[in-house]
Amino acid sequence: MSPISVAYQGEPGAYSELAALNHFGAHCVPMGFTDFDQVFDAVTKGACDYGCVPVENTLGGSIHRNYDLLMRHALHCVGEVVVPIRWFMYALPGTELGDVQRVISHWQTLAQCERSLDRLLPGITRKDVYDNAGAVKMLIEQNLTDHAAIAGARAGQIYKVPVIASGLEDDPSNATRFVILSRSVAANELLAGEVYKTSIVFALHNVPGALHKAMAAFALRDIDLCKIESRPLQGSPFEYLFYIDLIGHIAQPHFARALANLQEYTTIYRNFGSFARAR
Amino acid sequence: MSPISVAYQGEPGAYSELAALNHFGAHCVPMGFTDFDQVFDAVTKGACDYGCVPVENTLGGSIHRNYDLLMRHALHCVGEVVVPIRWFMYALPGTELGDVQRVISHWQTLAQCERSLDRLLPGITRKDVYDNAGAVKMLIEQNLTDHAAIAGARAGQIYKVPVIASGLEDDPSNATRFVILSRSVAANELLAGEVYKTSIVFALHNVPGALHKAMAAFALRDIDLCKIESRPLQGSPFEYLFYIDLIGHIAQPHFARALANLQEYTTIYRNFGSFARAR
Repeated sequence: MSPISVAYQGEPGAYSELAALNHFGAHCVPMGFTDFDQVFDAVTKGACDYGCVPVENTLGGSIHRNYDLLMRHALHCVGEVVVPIRWFMYALPGTELGDVQRVISHWQTLAQCERSLDRLLPGITRKDVYDNAGAVKMLIEQNLTDHAAIAGARAGQIYKVPVIASGLEDDPSNATRFVILSRSVAANELLAGEVYKTSIVFALHNVPGALHKAMAAFALRDIDLCKIESRPLQGSPFEYLFYIDLIGHIAQPHFARALANLQEYTTIYRNFGSFARAR
Repeated sequence: MSPISVAYQGEPGAYSELAALNHFGAHCVPMGFTDFDQVFDAVTKGACDYGCVPVENTLGGSIHRNYDLLMRHALHCVGEVVVPIRWFMYALPGTELGDVQRVISHWQTLAQCERSLDRLLPGITRKDVYDNAGAVKMLIEQNLTDHAAIAGARAGQIYKVPVIASGLEDDPSNATRFVILSRSVAANELLAGEVYKTSIVFALHNVPGALHKAMAAFALRDIDLCKIESRPLQGSPFEYLFYIDLIGHIAQPHFARALANLQEYTTIYRNFGSFARAR
């Protein structure tokens, strides 16, 4: 089997890299990029076979930036991965908790450890850097003996920096959902035992009951929803985009009919793809 | 008229303070707190008459933290304010754009100016501080001649620090919606010419079509939705909380009947309150 290159945002050790490795296994060659735009570009232009980007976190909600990039690019979602998020505090050998003057990490990570940090190191200075695995790397490169970095388990393994505190996540149910991006749609061959999901976005005419009528396309066919979110449509007050995830695959005739039915009501419609639901 | 004390998160000059001033006018005495928990506590315990907290941003989506705090406290939403978000870069007199070595602000503000900053000061170091108006104050207090701070228009007026760049928001349609918190429900007297909104949260039995059936309570009465968002229910896989905003007031009999009808299907239900929609 030939290697599969997968674009992600961040440094080796980031949760996005772990999500890619979990999904593609031993043949995966993760390739880190500085921002999400570059990940979408790398897949679109063929520099990488696939992309792996976060779309939702149980604490922070939807990552609108990646939904916007999905709308702007012609890529397809061909898989999803859910990764539980656990945060560890790293420091150089010899640095103890009492020596720490500043904690560095990505702002989202700092936000997810806010209350734990307040308990562990009251009043400590936080500094955000572009990536949390990158923060661990900075400890070594800049020999920061009075700093600690917050990152996931893999970052410590990669950079061989000791853990000085664990369980820093304020909410132990914290998990992030990633989607796998591809230039082509997934195979239409459905496997027994798999549950499939389809991710769509649409807009409707702004009249009372419009969403209820549109959703009848699914309800009357017993199709289950697993996410719904309205978002104000830019430049159109009181109009909305709806992000919806459904249980079903476009290759299932009743599901394809439901999507065709929905399109009788939509003013904007895009199907991001059908894929096996994460276990 | 006696002064009205309003709790908000941040320093004088923060958008939350501006939202409070916009809503309550000349008699408003805004009182800044370090975090959102303290704002909810100050209103609950009677230290302040009202609170003013952000619940949604057009770029970042819902502010789940404040929805969680709404669930945990017995406060009522009695008003809403929508404030367009504009970001300015401030530096001490004599500091020009070319002198800036580091940009400080709240992480959410830094995130909302990401691409503008990349264009204006490629590769510049960002540092997050707990509040963006607080960042402007830091420039003065610590005499940071090689730093710039990003904050709203009011922060510059308060601290009298010059603007060195404006229009830093990546998305000019960026706006934040705030709700006004109170210990008691709003007056049930409806004013002609006002449009009223009601904000609710609920959970349903996990069966296909459950949401469609629940929403029929509104659709069949021509009640318009202006927000819908599902959020995984902590500890219950495949169950969801739904945050819904509706056009209508609990004092309108058909609207009260719709909410009673909805409760025939809900397993969790909370009405945060009815209030005049922001203009």
